[in-house]
This record gives sequence, structure tokens and C-alpha cells, in this order.
Amino acid sequence: MSRTVYLNGEYLPETEAKVSIFDRAFLMADGVYEVTSVLGGKLIDFAGHARRLERSLAELDIKKPAAFGDLLEIHRKLVDLNDISEGLIYLQVTRGAPGDRDFAFPDPETTEPTLVLFTQNKPGLSDNPVAKKGIKVISIDDIRWGRRDIKTVQLLYPSMGKMMARKAGADDAWMVEDGFVTEGTSNNAYIVKDGKIITRNLGTDILHGITRAAVLACAREAQMAVEERPFSIDEAREADEAFLTSASAFVMPVVEIDGASVGTGTPGPVAGRLREIYLAESLKAAL
Amino acid sequence: MSRTVYLNGEYLPETEAKVSIFDRAFLMADGVYEVTSVLGGKLIDFAGHARRLERSLAELDIKKPAAFGDLLEIHRKLVDLNDISEGLIYLQVTRGAPGDRDFAFPDPETTEPTLVLFTQNKPGLSDNPVAKKGIKVISIDDIRWGRRDIKTVQLLYPSMGKMMARKAGADDAWMVEDGFVTEGTSNNAYIVKDGKIITRNLGTDILHGITRAAVLACAREAQMAVEERPFSIDEAREADEAFLTSASAFVMPVVEIDGASVGTGTPGPVAGRLREIYLAESLKAAL
Repeated sequence: MSRTVYLNGEYLPETEAKVSIFDRAFLMADGVYEVTSVLGGKLIDFAGHARRLERSLAELDIKKPAAFGDLLEIHRKLVDLNDISEGLIYLQVTRGAPGDRDFAFPDPETTEPTLVLFTQNKPGLSDNPVAKKGIKVISIDDIRWGRRDIKTVQLLYPSMGKMMARKAGADDAWMVEDGFVTEGTSNNAYIVKDGKIITRNLGTDILHGITRAAVLACAREAQMAVEERPFSIDEAREADEAFLTSASAFVMPVVEIDGASVGTGTPGPVAGRLREIYLAESLKAAL
Repeated sequence: MSRTVYLNGEYLPETEAKVSIFDRAFLMADGVYEVTSVLGGKLIDFAGHARRLERSLAELDIKKPAAFGDLLEIHRKLVDLNDISEGLIYLQVTRGAPGDRDFAFPDPETTEPTLVLFTQNKPGLSDNPVAKKGIKVISIDDIRWGRRDIKTVQLLYPSMGKMMARKAGADDAWMVEDGFVTEGTSNNAYIVKDGKIITRNLGTDILHGITRAAVLACAREAQMAVEERPFSIDEAREADEAFLTSASAFVMPVVEIDGASVGTGTPGPVAGRLREIYLAESLKAAL
């Protein structure tokens, strides 16, 4: 069955959703995005994603294409039209499609931003069997640009990282800069040592994960110790547990790093408990 | 008059040239490009651009969309259809448009690369009056990713750099990393001191400019001294001359850096002579 997607005010069959070759995202990676999970037909952490989108747009001087309420309505309508119970909604805003290519930004008075959204149906997303086994990661150099706090579509290197992981028989890659883990290709990275949850502090070098913020709030609420600071791959390999968070993986245990088991080599209790709490709490608050 | 552009085998009016929202360049900046100049209706350094395109594609494991001869024919047909005497031809290859979004590369057996080309008519490109006045640059931090030798469409930061230059009343920005100039937002950077031409050596930190290679060959042919090594902004400000090269600017004098005059504050003789020699030589070899 063909999906219905949203493009600049229209709901279209996915095969008819096309953008100009002059769109700034196509020619210059001049766009930002968000991915929101759907559980039980409802949106998880929508307000957080909408807030971060607004920040990404402001950092890049891209005009906001729609108000919070309108975006929420489009998300809900896509969930409905595509009959999504569990899955994802991808949203992208670009600086628009001026009539030609130029490094200089087009005049925002005459070039409207492009707004596109589409769904991905993922039955079983919350009860993902992978979370019971955990995943394997490799470490790779982080060579991305310096403003990873802005969620741009410059995803070529994360995409290459995913392929490097696959070739190495692993599931994902954690990126390392100046000796410390920044984050995964599309997720934030954590370790647990002596009951304490350790994850890199926020800055321009990592994405300010919406799921990260929610999971850390859950951890603190549950009286778990949290330390926000950089950690190395060596420290991660000697940790009791490792895990990652993202809007689509929620809390996902990491059981192997660069071929060596983390802790017992099986999903740990902290990650398991956080996954449970986070899913329960975010479902309660879902829109 | 509407341009005729090329998209995946078809010659189309520019307003009808559209790509799927699932194109990897639109969603993930997963594409590479080239810009070739046209002078006297002929292609400048076409073989160099075609070779570099091939290298960019190979580095990223993107399938080559067409043979050298076919690409040359498309370029020539666009020059003809759009009646270009002086101008540019932009070419972009992306990893194609699989039916959905995924960090992992799509199977190249089932997903063909996207190939798009369009012209920009620029009468007076070779006799550009700006070359007689020179341009002003500012310096900015280079925060781009680590593989600038691959000519990807990840141009958001260079585009931001151009806007920073504009806001500062300048024409372009030179990027600085670890104290040394890497390159301009869309050009290679040079200084001249005591008759010697100094430009950064090749590596993964700068684009391997096709015009750079041709201009350096011209300089050596003319018995000019060339030193390929990094230089700082301080050294540039104390130089006798500064200039940049690119496929569209050819050799362009830089007369001001961060608000201070370079040398006499007017275009220098080395840049002027190189521009002349380069234009004459490349016209002779044009296809």
C-alpha cells in the first residue's frame, strides 16, 4: 500500500512527492529534520521535537514553515491516513527552492521553506526483540562538522558509519573525537559504572537528544545517579553496561564494543529498567 | 527564457525537473557535484572535472551514472540548447532515490544514481570587471567535516560563510583550521611573497581544485616559484598579493583580508599574469 506523505500543504501519494532540483537541501544540505515516534497511534515527545526544530531553524536563519499546532495536526493526520499504530514520522524543513543555485541564502520574502513529512510503519517498535539481545557497536573517528547540535540533513558520514559497522559485523558505530565518544550515528551514547549513568554533556559536539533529555529525567526521578561528562572507548569497554537512546530505538542496550563484551555481554539492568520507565512515562504524556 | 536542464536521461524545462523526496541528496546530503566553466561555447578543464567526479564517486561507493563520453555529450547538448557562450554547467550525482529513508546505503543493483545537470548563463565571465578590482575576504573558523577532498553537496557551512562575509561587507570567507588557512568557501586560497606563490598542499582538508592544478601548472611553466604548504591569516596579511582560484572565478585577486589591505590594496601582477595565462591556455585546450 502506498503511503500518503505531506509536501508543502498537500497530502500526496509518496511516488508523487517531488521537490525541485533547486531545493537547497538537494543542492547544499541546507535543511533540518526531526523524527518523532508513534506508539499506540500517539506522538511521543512531540513538544520536545517541535521545540528542537524551532531551535535548529533559528540557528540557521530558516523561516519557520508552520506553527506548533499546524505541525501537530499534520503529524496526526499522517498517522491517521497511514493507519500507524507504531512507527515514526519524519519531518524535514529546507530553506526552500529558489529558481537557481547560489551559495548566498535566497531572500526569505520570496522563497518559502520546503516542508515535507512522511511516516514509516514499524509494528512492534516498542516491544522490539533487539532490545532483549542488545546491539554491537564499533568505534570510528568523528569527522563531522562542528555544529552537531543543529539537526541538519548532513548525514553522509553517519550513513557511512552505519555501513562501516555493517561491514564489521556490528549494528552501529560510536564516534570518537579527541579520545572521547561523542555519540552514535543516530543516537546518544551512555555507559553505566557502579550504578552511575555516564553520558556526554551537551555542547555543539553532540545532538541534544530529545529522548536523551527524557530518559535522564526518568533516571533522576527514579533516584539513579547521572553524570554528564565525556567518556572514552576504553572506559566504555570496562563499564558494567552500555546503552544508547534515540527517538526510534528508545533505550537500547549495547552489549559489545569493538568486538569485546561490555559487562556480562548481555543487556544490563539499568538499561532495561530505563527502557521500561521511559516507555511508560512517554506513553502517558503522548499527544 | 526557461532553461532546459538534464535529469536522469531527459532534457526538461527547469520548472519540471523534480526529484523524489526520498532522494539521498535531499534527505542525507549523499551526493557529489562538479561545476565546469564554458567560454566561447566550449568546456574548460572538462577532463579534470570528469576525473575528479569519478574519484568522488569511488570514495563514496556511488555508482558512476554515465561514461565520460556520455557526460561530455550531455554537457555539450546543454550548452547548445541553452545557447551558452560564457557560463557554468553544474552536475550532481546522488546515490539515488530508494523508496524510503534509511541510513544504510540502498542496494546499487536496484537503486540507480540520480544524475542532474543545469546551466548558468554568465555573459562576461572571462572579462569579469571584479577581477580588475579584486575582492575582500574575511576569515572564519573551518568547522566542516574531515573529507573536504570529496566534493560532496554538504555545503551548508560554506553557504553560511558566504553570508557571514556579506554581513561583514566582504565578498567571501577564507576558512582557518589550527591556525592555518584551509581554503575559501568555494575556491582555493593563495598568497604571493617575494615572487613566490604559496598555497596549501593537498590533503583531506581541502578540495583538490581542478583550476588549482591547472593554474599551478601554468605558474611552473612560466618559471614562477610555487610552494605548497599551509599559511596563516597573519602571513597572508603581510603578503605582497593574495588571490583565489575556482572553476567560475578562474584567478581572482584578493585585496583585503579581515578589513586590512593586502600589499598595495589593489590586484597584484602575479595574480593578473596568472589569470591571463590560465584563460589563454585553458581556452586552447577547451572541449
